[in-house]
Amino acid sequence: MNYEAFFGEELAAVREEGRYRVFAEIERKAGSFPYAKRYIEGGTMDVTVWCSNDYLGMGQHPKVLDAMHRVIDECGAGAGGTRNISGTNHHHVLLEAELADLHHKEDALLFTSGYVSNWAALGTLASKIPNCVVLSDALNHASMIEGIRHSRATCKVFEHNSPEDLDRKLAALDPDLPKLVAFESVYSMDGDIAPIAEILDVCEKHNAMSYIDEVHAVGLYGPRGGGVAEREGLMDRITVIEGTLGKAFGVMGGYIAASRDLCDFVRTFASGFIFSTAIPPAVAAGACASIKHLKASNAEREQHQARVAKVRGALDRMGIPHIPNPSHIIPVMVGDPHKCKFISDWLMDNHGIYVQPINYPTVPRGTERLRITPSPVHSDGDIDKLLNALSEIWSQCALARRDMAA
Amino acid sequence: MNYEAFFGEELAAVREEGRYRVFAEIERKAGSFPYAKRYIEGGTMDVTVWCSNDYLGMGQHPKVLDAMHRVIDECGAGAGGTRNISGTNHHHVLLEAELADLHHKEDALLFTSGYVSNWAALGTLASKIPNCVVLSDALNHASMIEGIRHSRATCKVFEHNSPEDLDRKLAALDPDLPKLVAFESVYSMDGDIAPIAEILDVCEKHNAMSYIDEVHAVGLYGPRGGGVAEREGLMDRITVIEGTLGKAFGVMGGYIAASRDLCDFVRTFASGFIFSTAIPPAVAAGACASIKHLKASNAEREQHQARVAKVRGALDRMGIPHIPNPSHIIPVMVGDPHKCKFISDWLMDNHGIYVQPINYPTVPRGTERLRITPSPVHSDGDIDKLLNALSEIWSQCALARRDMAA
Repeated sequence: MNYEAFFGEELAAVREEGRYRVFAEIERKAGSFPYAKRYIEGGTMDVTVWCSNDYLGMGQHPKVLDAMHRVIDECGAGAGGTRNISGTNHHHVLLEAELADLHHKEDALLFTSGYVSNWAALGTLASKIPNCVVLSDALNHASMIEGIRHSRATCKVFEHNSPEDLDRKLAALDPDLPKLVAFESVYSMDGDIAPIAEILDVCEKHNAMSYIDEVHAVGLYGPRGGGVAEREGLMDRITVIEGTLGKAFGVMGGYIAASRDLCDFVRTFASGFIFSTAIPPAVAAGACASIKHLKASNAEREQHQARVAKVRGALDRMGIPHIPNPSHIIPVMVGDPHKCKFISDWLMDNHGIYVQPINYPTVPRGTERLRITPSPVHSDGDIDKLLNALSEIWSQCALARRDMAA
Repeated sequence: MNYEAFFGEELAAVREEGRYRVFAEIERKAGSFPYAKRYIEGGTMDVTVWCSNDYLGMGQHPKVLDAMHRVIDECGAGAGGTRNISGTNHHHVLLEAELADLHHKEDALLFTSGYVSNWAALGTLASKIPNCVVLSDALNHASMIEGIRHSRATCKVFEHNSPEDLDRKLAALDPDLPKLVAFESVYSMDGDIAPIAEILDVCEKHNAMSYIDEVHAVGLYGPRGGGVAEREGLMDRITVIEGTLGKAFGVMGGYIAASRDLCDFVRTFASGFIFSTAIPPAVAAGACASIKHLKASNAEREQHQARVAKVRGALDRMGIPHIPNPSHIIPVMVGDPHKCKFISDWLMDNHGIYVQPINYPTVPRGTERLRITPSPVHSDGDIDKLLNALSEIWSQCALARRDMAA
């Protein structure tokens, strides 16, 4: 076995498929989002970022940065240990209380990332509850799938966003078996939103626990930024709400919010929680400041939705195809990995517009896309530039347009 | 199924066993390590932390804090996306170059934690290399075990630190099968160090890849802090070196250093890498500053070893049993979870000395211990106080002593 040759061949195959990923090296400019410096061979160029998941620009909010600065001065850089072994800082405790309050749950538990929170929480619940069966939405995120897979529990995949299929699948199971229904509120690549109330009706009918991933919704929806479940008044009916501090809240980390005993159970048994160094106290404090601000302020959320509507309307007028959805995510469909990368490179090189091409395994093959995420920090001028550039490349490449809106 | 009742019962069983974990809520004081504020009901108290994995106190180093402050001001709080989707900041790229240089490897790849780096790198290598067999040291860390388990690859466990048993197990395999040998340099709970050269001899004899976890060694050993493998001149013979930024480097995050194609392979296929928001640019910059400093300065390492020797010598003089080992970790053995917790509580409440009790699943049942980690920031006075307190409680509880050193 020649290991190096094997790696080289596998990478060559990925290149061949057009899905080899080149990371754009950027430096966002705090105070000037969405603008960033991009590092290229021999220098830098200015770019406008149109694909960030810092959806509201909270990553540059003075309250967030001030909290981080203050806590670095007070507590230093890292936590210095796992949560159990000297790594629980006062700011982690404050943040968990803030998150429990955000979701009106008894408790919350922090993880190093949203990925780890899904992987560890689902993996622990599904493996430690004897004979637990997991019902998993067909389009669940990789972190949920890997957590369920890791648990070795029986998993039944139900049709995407279909309470009817979930009901059928649950009805076919022994009523006495423990059951866990895992789904998302906003699906990040298509931007569609789950019928949460209907799914919860089915869960309750069959005495199944419900687990919702709200990572693309917390901070963005609901009167206090509690997510789609808050907006729809459903938080108290959900067993576990999972979220992230790394998207709308602008920092990093993941969490679950649930009953005190459920959080304590995951805290006690989840390997990915127990054996990880806690997030830096300053990161926890920054996230806490962000949540507090967005609990009290709707301005960012309103401006966000207005920007999204503006971009969407302009795309419609130009006939540029995008998936219609009720969320803030605008997937402009290309459907070919080579073409998708070409357009992305062209936008960057010719217009300083940064929209990353999204390809397999993040989306299914054949559905490659440009995923545009407008934010309150994008100006009218930014939007005009984006739309003009897209229109130009659509014409140049003779890409299909929809009927243009009148 | 009554889920809440189930969680409650499981937690009650853990309490019964004496291994229910109560996290000490502390606030380390930057500039005054190892001192911290501990939050207790109705107030706070001052404590001295004796169980941190910020082994050198780099979490308060001015170069580290300055770098974090500067990059927060320049780039903001979070990275804003996964590495592929707008989350690759210039500071991640600089840090990866710094890590590759530290280990004299072609490349390095960052993860959100050491746990994730082991889980994702081992999981990806073992699952994506067809028919790969993993040889795993019997005392490997949970993150390595979970990664190997997740891969579904065949795994053979070899006797702890035994090149002979590894040789036997490798010899029994089809010589044409791909093989991956996973082990650690410093084992964190006993503090023993692997016979790296002998293990590498066996790996080379059988054309197996070698994967070493140096999380409790990077920054601490070797002339530039490259770990035990650097100290012993063995880095170039190791396929993958895995490390953390959250212990001796004082910040957070994990990484692997290896050949360009191996790093690229993991970057391309590891779900836990692809789908996680990148660490904050300021965290990357802080870690980078810490590595740079420890590459050039041996003072912290020398002082660290001197402090460890001083504590160990004093324990010997008092006959307090601890596992002898060639590293910086001092496991004071208690062997009972209830007693271990009692001593820890007593030290904290009566002397403001914080040493977390270590129990199952972190160590095997019956080997519960106080794991003491002296650091350059502990003064002679701190050491005297620790030793006097330990001696007092050893007498009070009539705990076994070894023959006291003359």
